[in-house]
Amino acid sequence: MRANQFFDLGRTLAGLAACALVSATAIAQADPLPSWNDGAAKKAIVDFVQATTTPGSAQFVPAAERIATFDQDGTLWVSHPVYAQLMFCFDRVPALVKAKPELANKEPFKTVMSGNREAIAKLSIRDLEQIAMATLSGMTVEQFSAEVKQWMAEAKDPRWKRPYNELAYQPMLEVLAYLRANGYRTYIVTGGGQDFVRVYSESTYGIPPEQVVGSANVTSYGYDKEGRPFLIKDPKLLLNDDNAGKPEGIHLMIGRRPYAAFGNSTGDRQMLEYTKAGSGLRLSMLVLHDDAVREYAYGPAQGLPDTHVGTFTQALYDEAVRSGWIVISMKKDWKKIFAFDP
Amino acid sequence: MRANQFFDLGRTLAGLAACALVSATAIAQADPLPSWNDGAAKKAIVDFVQATTTPGSAQFVPAAERIATFDQDGTLWVSHPVYAQLMFCFDRVPALVKAKPELANKEPFKTVMSGNREAIAKLSIRDLEQIAMATLSGMTVEQFSAEVKQWMAEAKDPRWKRPYNELAYQPMLEVLAYLRANGYRTYIVTGGGQDFVRVYSESTYGIPPEQVVGSANVTSYGYDKEGRPFLIKDPKLLLNDDNAGKPEGIHLMIGRRPYAAFGNSTGDRQMLEYTKAGSGLRLSMLVLHDDAVREYAYGPAQGLPDTHVGTFTQALYDEAVRSGWIVISMKKDWKKIFAFDP
Repeated sequence: MRANQFFDLGRTLAGLAACALVSATAIAQADPLPSWNDGAAKKAIVDFVQATTTPGSAQFVPAAERIATFDQDGTLWVSHPVYAQLMFCFDRVPALVKAKPELANKEPFKTVMSGNREAIAKLSIRDLEQIAMATLSGMTVEQFSAEVKQWMAEAKDPRWKRPYNELAYQPMLEVLAYLRANGYRTYIVTGGGQDFVRVYSESTYGIPPEQVVGSANVTSYGYDKEGRPFLIKDPKLLLNDDNAGKPEGIHLMIGRRPYAAFGNSTGDRQMLEYTKAGSGLRLSMLVLHDDAVREYAYGPAQGLPDTHVGTFTQALYDEAVRSGWIVISMKKDWKKIFAFDP
Repeated sequence: MRANQFFDLGRTLAGLAACALVSATAIAQADPLPSWNDGAAKKAIVDFVQATTTPGSAQFVPAAERIATFDQDGTLWVSHPVYAQLMFCFDRVPALVKAKPELANKEPFKTVMSGNREAIAKLSIRDLEQIAMATLSGMTVEQFSAEVKQWMAEAKDPRWKRPYNELAYQPMLEVLAYLRANGYRTYIVTGGGQDFVRVYSESTYGIPPEQVVGSANVTSYGYDKEGRPFLIKDPKLLLNDDNAGKPEGIHLMIGRRPYAAFGNSTGDRQMLEYTKAGSGLRLSMLVLHDDAVREYAYGPAQGLPDTHVGTFTQALYDEAVRSGWIVISMKKDWKKIFAFDP
């Protein structure tokens, strides 16, 4: 019996050792951020998650308070040279003109209808706002969702010839999944249209519509001829979810200060600042577009003009350094940009 | 060996039978709505949950789409004769007058400061709005939360001499828990202040702040003397989350049509209508205050005047019957009103 007991003990110890070996291997293999090169950016993300989610850690954050916010355009997917949503607006102009023929000879719709790319590229911010307001309103919220869904299924980015949702950045999808696996709720906080992004946020980023905060028009409750109620999108801005509008939108829609925030332009400055100003350990990160080969290099930091409204300026870079935000270099920190990259 | 096998089989069967017995007993004991009397209202809730959450059911709703919305005042807790939030506003007037002495001789603040109950009761809706706007703005969102938290800990309802959170309706707390146990996310959709309700929604109703939709003021992002960013509450309404503002607020903050909605007044009419107009099985319910002994009986349906802005009118009752909404009689459907009831 003694021999047997010894044998059993030996077997148990061997089993435990094997388990420990398997676990260590599993942990070593399960890099949550496989598309990231080792470096300050990757380390900052992993350290943040470990410090805020390990019980007993001085910087532990209760699960209910784990909120992370992400700008979309240029942070989660390609936004250069033109935002996807603006392409949607241009593509909707013919249907708009058909419904309202008086717009055919009215600028800026006339220029868009001409198809003259050079002239379209010269449209002012004010023109673009007018096009956006006209094409993003006048329909019920269900009609709008259906139109965006169809457009997303058909439209392709001119450079990669792929649907826009395939142009999500693989390393950022990994950050989203890693944070969620550690109890964080991930929100999009975009200057883009809330109703637009909500259509594809779940399938593209794993983020449900109720976790999308964005610019939003007023909607009006009314009734159709059969007396059925509907919500119609009005041509009137309710929330401008950019710049100071981002922390204001976060307070309105979430009601908690994020522990982590990710952006890529001056439009994200206040969100990153507000996040970092919270107590305890907070993570503010900026995506720098410095990879002219695999994606784009733009912004004054690269000595290149930026066609965007929001941009990554030298002043923003300086604030990042001064305030302890972490800059992500797409060129150095990311092994691959897209899921389809080799 | 054969005898042993038979014995083992017998033991297995006995075990299975015992398990089945325990399960049946557990199910019979686990009434999810123990404070509800059997009747049409309780049956409607249980039938709705079973039909929308049982896989294979014709009315099955995927977990991601399971949204239920609840008005607060008069639906989840006592709001008669005065809303708790209005009591908070009155209680804040002395501090406001101390900070702005010029208000001491200005109406309606002068009347509130007089302490003359009869005169206070005669203040107009416009006066009350002015008091609310003045007492709910001018501070940072953190300062406001701290003030509400302290008030909730100290203030007591004049009739029951208990903190307001104890005046939540026990049967409705059971509905919230029952829906959540079946994968529904429960939201408050209140005409009251979003920032006010968010302070105690988790502890009172198990509803986190990000699932509270309510009337909201504009907030402004700014910096203190040390350059630290803050959000200040402005005296300007951004969302009026009442009447048509409820479905509009639901679209803005959630982006999905609810499958179940609960209200008690004309301010909830459009939310119940919008919910019921969705495809598939939807549940719209109205709480009728008809228990003068255990709570209150009010509204024109009871032949009594209602001091509220929103009220349960005969027209609302008629629409409920016509539209297949279910009316909950507090007197007949609820075994107890409060957790502290015997």
